[in-house]
Amino acid sequence: MKKYIKQASIVLGSACLSAGIAFAGGGNAHWGYSGAQGPANWGNLSPEFEMCAKGKNQSPINITSTIESELPPITFSYAASPLDVINNGHTIKASMAPGSSITVEGHTYELKQVHWHTPSENHIDGRSFPMEAHFVHADAEGNLAVIGIMYVKGREDASIVDIWNNMPAKTGEVSNNADVTVNPMDMLPTNRDYYRFNGSLTTPPCSEGVRWMVMKDPVEASAEQVEKFHSSFHGDTNRPIQPVNARPILR
Amino acid sequence: MKKYIKQASIVLGSACLSAGIAFAGGGNAHWGYSGAQGPANWGNLSPEFEMCAKGKNQSPINITSTIESELPPITFSYAASPLDVINNGHTIKASMAPGSSITVEGHTYELKQVHWHTPSENHIDGRSFPMEAHFVHADAEGNLAVIGIMYVKGREDASIVDIWNNMPAKTGEVSNNADVTVNPMDMLPTNRDYYRFNGSLTTPPCSEGVRWMVMKDPVEASAEQVEKFHSSFHGDTNRPIQPVNARPILR
Repeated sequence: MKKYIKQASIVLGSACLSAGIAFAGGGNAHWGYSGAQGPANWGNLSPEFEMCAKGKNQSPINITSTIESELPPITFSYAASPLDVINNGHTIKASMAPGSSITVEGHTYELKQVHWHTPSENHIDGRSFPMEAHFVHADAEGNLAVIGIMYVKGREDASIVDIWNNMPAKTGEVSNNADVTVNPMDMLPTNRDYYRFNGSLTTPPCSEGVRWMVMKDPVEASAEQVEKFHSSFHGDTNRPIQPVNARPILR
Repeated sequence: MKKYIKQASIVLGSACLSAGIAFAGGGNAHWGYSGAQGPANWGNLSPEFEMCAKGKNQSPINITSTIESELPPITFSYAASPLDVINNGHTIKASMAPGSSITVEGHTYELKQVHWHTPSENHIDGRSFPMEAHFVHADAEGNLAVIGIMYVKGREDASIVDIWNNMPAKTGEVSNNADVTVNPMDMLPTNRDYYRFNGSLTTPPCSEGVRWMVMKDPVEASAEQVEKFHSSFHGDTNRPIQPVNARPILR
């Protein structure tokens, strides 16, 4: 297959970006998923990361003891977007062109980017999944809404093939091509029932006030697809689950 | 009526306590409900109060855009407790002897104290109430659960008469009498349906991770009872409503 990774790729100045969410000053300290810069120490790496340690409403969580609720459907208005992928050192992030959004509870959030974690960050009733995608949305005031989708190993996921075939191997490397499109609509499960709770970014600075919706149904990806992502980051890219504390989880 | 305010009342060292919830170091900075020490500045008064300014999950809130849910009933196991009331400079707090608790969603929280605010702190569908009681509970790990009850003006509330008749007028003054009991069970509305959300203390240090349950039905108190409390603190004792942000509110 053709590869669209730019020969003269744009290598960004910092090898240490957040998982794709702009946050003033939050990208200055290096962090990772193991050792001294691992999740247990994130709160100590920078004063701006203090919520990672102090927050009472952190993500990810184990989705359990849920409360049956009349959650309104999410209206998805996603459109195909030109391939625009970066390896930011923590994940593969596919940026989305303006024009994709969701509406839920009368509120509209624009889809900014999709990125992945192996294994899953959230758990469902104690179960970890091989991979999880995060669809990151923001409303006009900058409030974030994240949709999480779990993957089980099965058939190849055709909706991510172009991203996977053009996955930049090195930190800061960019892969984009206006002639190739990815459609986030195709990445969704057929049944869009979801869990709802409030939480945080799962990466420093771990900012709270994030509206989380995790799809109840997983989608399939091949073992090879999961392994390719996992090996690109030389291991796991999941923050451990955090205490639910006072939060209700709606199903 | 007899008054039980101790002649030799125990005046505490600090005139500036929290509204009754112990929090290491959190009681050192003076705060109030107006002026330079008012709610808009709480976050600047002490580094320990930073959540008052930075928190994304703060209380009180306007309870609106609620989601219909199968909330389980709260099991109340409240017992009468000897009169033990303090004016802590911010509210009248009635401490409860061990032996009163609630159980909800399989979790038991012990009732520690009841205190009041005029006007109400939480709003319901944009409506403020003349007064609100907060029943503060803690589980074995120190996690807090607060039940809020709204008052409308009507008949005298007999359940708070002994507390009101022995309301200490001065900051730090204590009123207690083992021969007089107050029963928090009598303070509850008949219908115990409630709203559920997560939030914070409504007073510095505004700590988050608090499980909030606000009764849908108000109880009645006389205009004189509300006015006596209000005048004791020379004005309002309510923090303004805070942004709901990403939190679901269950009904």
